[in-house]
Amino acid sequence: MRTLNVELDERSYPIRIGAGLIADPGLILPYLKTRRVAVVTNDVVGPLYLAPFVAGLQAHGLRVTEIVLPDGEAHKDWATLNLIFDGLLGDRCDRSTTLIALGGGVVGDMTGFAAATYQRGVPFIQVPTTLLSQVDSSVGGKTAINHPLGKNMIGAFYQPRLVLADIGVLGTLPDRELKAGLAEVIKYGLIRDLPFLEWLETNIERLLARDPDALVEAVERSCRNKAEVVAADETEQGERATLNLGHTFGHAIETGLGYGEWLHGEAVAAGAVMAADLSRRLGWLSDADVARVRSIHERAGLPVKGAALGAERYLELMAHDKKVSDGTLRLVLLKQIGQAVISAEASQDQIRASIEACC
Amino acid sequence: MRTLNVELDERSYPIRIGAGLIADPGLILPYLKTRRVAVVTNDVVGPLYLAPFVAGLQAHGLRVTEIVLPDGEAHKDWATLNLIFDGLLGDRCDRSTTLIALGGGVVGDMTGFAAATYQRGVPFIQVPTTLLSQVDSSVGGKTAINHPLGKNMIGAFYQPRLVLADIGVLGTLPDRELKAGLAEVIKYGLIRDLPFLEWLETNIERLLARDPDALVEAVERSCRNKAEVVAADETEQGERATLNLGHTFGHAIETGLGYGEWLHGEAVAAGAVMAADLSRRLGWLSDADVARVRSIHERAGLPVKGAALGAERYLELMAHDKKVSDGTLRLVLLKQIGQAVISAEASQDQIRASIEACC
Repeated sequence: MRTLNVELDERSYPIRIGAGLIADPGLILPYLKTRRVAVVTNDVVGPLYLAPFVAGLQAHGLRVTEIVLPDGEAHKDWATLNLIFDGLLGDRCDRSTTLIALGGGVVGDMTGFAAATYQRGVPFIQVPTTLLSQVDSSVGGKTAINHPLGKNMIGAFYQPRLVLADIGVLGTLPDRELKAGLAEVIKYGLIRDLPFLEWLETNIERLLARDPDALVEAVERSCRNKAEVVAADETEQGERATLNLGHTFGHAIETGLGYGEWLHGEAVAAGAVMAADLSRRLGWLSDADVARVRSIHERAGLPVKGAALGAERYLELMAHDKKVSDGTLRLVLLKQIGQAVISAEASQDQIRASIEACC
Repeated sequence: MRTLNVELDERSYPIRIGAGLIADPGLILPYLKTRRVAVVTNDVVGPLYLAPFVAGLQAHGLRVTEIVLPDGEAHKDWATLNLIFDGLLGDRCDRSTTLIALGGGVVGDMTGFAAATYQRGVPFIQVPTTLLSQVDSSVGGKTAINHPLGKNMIGAFYQPRLVLADIGVLGTLPDRELKAGLAEVIKYGLIRDLPFLEWLETNIERLLARDPDALVEAVERSCRNKAEVVAADETEQGERATLNLGHTFGHAIETGLGYGEWLHGEAVAAGAVMAADLSRRLGWLSDADVARVRSIHERAGLPVKGAALGAERYLELMAHDKKVSDGTLRLVLLKQIGQAVISAEASQDQIRASIEACC
């Protein structure tokens, strides 16, 4: 088991990475406020892992409330969030109850937001069960639900007390979701860690084959990159926004098609290629650089073209993005491979050209 | 105009208290992040004050989004909160838009919660238009909505950048609401400020007659008391809970009757008398003390008996209270007049006896 500490002053917390962690309640006990916990999962992960996980906690004398949500980004809404509140209030969970998210990014985001807002804040532990959530949402404390007019529009910054990234549970992850997770892994290489990108270019096949050692290495290096960024900029006033490489284009795809058509990582992959293409138009990347960005995503089995929504629809959806500040669209682009910047330099015409070239 | 600073490190903010403040946009301009604001009000306050307030802001070049909610505690729910998000997203308000709450406690609580969670947090200014919201919710950053199973169950701690407490707008406040506000004013005297209670016992008639000087004095001394408590305990780990004198009983009344039957302050008044009666049963207050608590509320035109829900229903509703920690009900009681404590010492039988004696 490896441990990585996310340094956020009094909100600092450890991420433990290894195989078989969810079978060891002893890892969780020191982080509880009282002996009451509520485990939130979904109807795909629940049947696989909920019963043994809860039994392990109960064997240590904990009182456990179980809450099972419908699976999928399409349910990342208020109605589903309210199922968590109904479960907590129905079982009289109080302010000292610790919420544990057992699932992927959607379960983590919703449970985190529920923890941030239930009785104005209760303790929170994350047990991410997808590669995407292990390398992305397990670090940084972003929680949210979607609104019909935009993704992640309602949420909070709220840090967990502990993250358990169990590599073992990735064994049951569908191939498509494993690949979607790799999109965020690749992203860290592109925005700030060229040696990691080179490591990925050597080891991408081992990751696709779910080699445990390679997965532990990829999760740890991803989390370390994200933790460094978040520690420097917890509430996304500056550098943290570079973690959104590909996300503004990607969110347009997800919103334009309706949540759940493309996986988040798939949309981010296509978005990263679009951002690379746009960076080339600004003179920052070469044709070879763009091909390199495209290639690593292709080798990971990810889409490298966006959904055919039409350029105008993309631009309209992107205008709703949270990175719009005072009316100006800011995009995460690449100054070079391994170095992202936040820029408002691209013209509407250049953005339109990149969308058309990459769809 | 008087100014009181709420000291919360980098979240510190001023409260300005005086007559005619909402007619002076110059008080607001220094606290905006950009020239975009969204003013949230309700359909009672809006017709009286929204148009001139917005016109004043527009005259200074601000772009203003107007959002009008249905009035009343019964609408302090997700559906109404969502009207704020709909309005913000529909008008493409971004992360730097400042939300301004123009209204009473419900508008303030909901706008504050919307500000805490819209795009994970946007700046927030409060312009409380009721006595209750000027002396209570304008200090401390508690925001929330109700859930069918409990009041204020979903919310956040989120501080405004500025509060404008305009005594002038209290001129249009219905008598019943003025009196309800006095319940929270009296509370500060009871829990920690005996000289202020004595001042109230001398000046209660001036307050009921809306004497502006008396109102400024009462608002300032109330806010100062609350600010001191909140500065010492922002997230209610300890002393801050004493501000909830009467609230656990009061919430049971509000929930038991359905939100909106009794005004919050009315329920708190009856709850404070119940808490005083229970403090007497624990040997802390004399009969004369309890009579004094009852008398000041009676003189303010407030109820001093709880709603007849039956003691068992009270106990059931109180068990849902946020002050329940790990299964133990903690109540705010009075060690003496002017000194509150948080206590789990009262037995179920004693609580039941106080409910029965005071309904």
